[in-house]
Amino acid sequence: MAVSQMKGKQSIEFREAPHIISSASVVGPKEGEGPLGEAFDLVAPEAEFGEDTWEKAESTMQKEALQTAAGKAGLSLWQIRYLFGGDLLAQLTATSFGNEEAGVPVFGLYGACSTCGESLTLAAMTIAAGYADYTAALTSSHFGSAEKEFRFPLGYGSQRPLSATWTVTGSGAFLLAAKGGHVKISGVTPGRIVDMGVRDNMNMGACMAPAACGTIFQNLMDFNRQPRDYDRIITGDLGFVGQTILIDLLKEKGFDIAQQHMDCGIEIYDHEKQDTHAGGSGCGCSAAVLAAMILPKLCQGIWKRVLFVPTGALLSKVSFNEGRTIPGIAHAVVLERC
Amino acid sequence: MAVSQMKGKQSIEFREAPHIISSASVVGPKEGEGPLGEAFDLVAPEAEFGEDTWEKAESTMQKEALQTAAGKAGLSLWQIRYLFGGDLLAQLTATSFGNEEAGVPVFGLYGACSTCGESLTLAAMTIAAGYADYTAALTSSHFGSAEKEFRFPLGYGSQRPLSATWTVTGSGAFLLAAKGGHVKISGVTPGRIVDMGVRDNMNMGACMAPAACGTIFQNLMDFNRQPRDYDRIITGDLGFVGQTILIDLLKEKGFDIAQQHMDCGIEIYDHEKQDTHAGGSGCGCSAAVLAAMILPKLCQGIWKRVLFVPTGALLSKVSFNEGRTIPGIAHAVVLERC
Repeated sequence: MAVSQMKGKQSIEFREAPHIISSASVVGPKEGEGPLGEAFDLVAPEAEFGEDTWEKAESTMQKEALQTAAGKAGLSLWQIRYLFGGDLLAQLTATSFGNEEAGVPVFGLYGACSTCGESLTLAAMTIAAGYADYTAALTSSHFGSAEKEFRFPLGYGSQRPLSATWTVTGSGAFLLAAKGGHVKISGVTPGRIVDMGVRDNMNMGACMAPAACGTIFQNLMDFNRQPRDYDRIITGDLGFVGQTILIDLLKEKGFDIAQQHMDCGIEIYDHEKQDTHAGGSGCGCSAAVLAAMILPKLCQGIWKRVLFVPTGALLSKVSFNEGRTIPGIAHAVVLERC
Repeated sequence: MAVSQMKGKQSIEFREAPHIISSASVVGPKEGEGPLGEAFDLVAPEAEFGEDTWEKAESTMQKEALQTAAGKAGLSLWQIRYLFGGDLLAQLTATSFGNEEAGVPVFGLYGACSTCGESLTLAAMTIAAGYADYTAALTSSHFGSAEKEFRFPLGYGSQRPLSATWTVTGSGAFLLAAKGGHVKISGVTPGRIVDMGVRDNMNMGACMAPAACGTIFQNLMDFNRQPRDYDRIITGDLGFVGQTILIDLLKEKGFDIAQQHMDCGIEIYDHEKQDTHAGGSGCGCSAAVLAAMILPKLCQGIWKRVLFVPTGALLSKVSFNEGRTIPGIAHAVVLERC
């Protein structure tokens, strides 16, 4: 296995690109009322998902997403060799309690809202190296559990500035194999941690934009591509504020992505009607939008090649309260129609 | 890259086993006073490591460990292609703030105290597949930050039952490459989440022992080995309580590992003199003992083949306070003298 698949400074180009053979999205009622509402596999009638805590609700979303994706592929869960999963909560509470029953070996991941990209990257690396027949990438976020984890209990009714994003209640599951899908992961660009000194936890877009810029720039350099070589360059949850910053930062580095750029956080809600301010966020945001919108458009041939770049803000309640900055990270995955 | 390296139900056997080319351990003063004190690369005179918060101290340990390991290998940090890192804190605070300066793409991992095994597994998979020339596996824990994260502020002076473990203040860094070391990672057995319903966060050994049993059993089955095929089977931080449970559980499954079993948490302290009760714990415990004791004994040829099994308890403050059980996980790494 000594054949190198290294590409440029920090990317991998797969000689035999793994396929996404199945995907599923599970969301809460607010997401169901948004512009992508019809496209999700399961929209719960209430955000509690029948559970008595937000954390259990989030675990239930993960279970439903994984089972739905496996069902679509005609697979039993025991056929999945490794699961790459994560969420936003301390010690991955949603993932730890959501995946015991599945009985699949689990690699727990944390990259904040970039975890969907991290999980797809490792799931693809594992398939392409012949380490597994089937792998799963599974991530989630929940508005209730995330507000409790990072900000204030919902009962306080805190006001939110316009730069704040709204954590998506949702989960996305993806099954990968060597063959058998309509979309392949042809390459990946894992990201570095970038800290530009932003400290405002109500402006995550600004925290993450420099990391997104760094990863997209390196992807273009490593693969020797121009923005027009992608039908879309789709970030995870920069929102409106972060989108402007990202486009400006990349212009300074010589690339204009204004024509290609989309953001999952912008797509998932009708922001005027749904009062979601700067956009949706969370590692369930990019995952649910990938399953409900991006993969279908690639499957239908509307897009041929997309750069999918989930973005994460690496803060914790403790780091924020201790006055630290908020570093960002972004992991890029190249998706192509087979 | 279609050549399968799958072994049995959930293991990987590397055709070209990656080497650990360098390692480093950094610990606090209490660990320095323990039986392995002389063997650590750096023992800090005080647990604050010159910082004003426990979290910053833990980040500083990670930086020192990585730089020391790189220095020993004669590498600059920019030559490391990917870093697989994690810690016990919410949102990986120590890792997120400890690795921005290094400028290496980061895969953030969370497997509680099993994260050292998870990071070595992924770092080895990445090297063996030809995705990188050099990878790093880096984990840490800190007594002060962990008590604050999971239990009570140190200032409360809470009493600890004898089944409680003592979180190690320490970090271990490992650099991997295709060749060039004296110890290779010949195989891995990533673990499943196992929940036997234990709820006592002052008895982590009992929470983790069933997961360790499952992973060790599967490793023996997948590689068709007996316990005697390993010079040692070394768990991460089961401590005295968990050790007894593990040996009993594996006996029920037909394997007697009493002769081979060791535990990093038992090795790192003089428990009578140092008042550490059931043993040391934390993802810095297994990492520091691996660097300071296990790898040297393999390098010297005292041991030829060791099964290294870091163990993790997947609880969070929230899950514990909501009355949930404490699931466990364990990831096994087969280490052999080259």
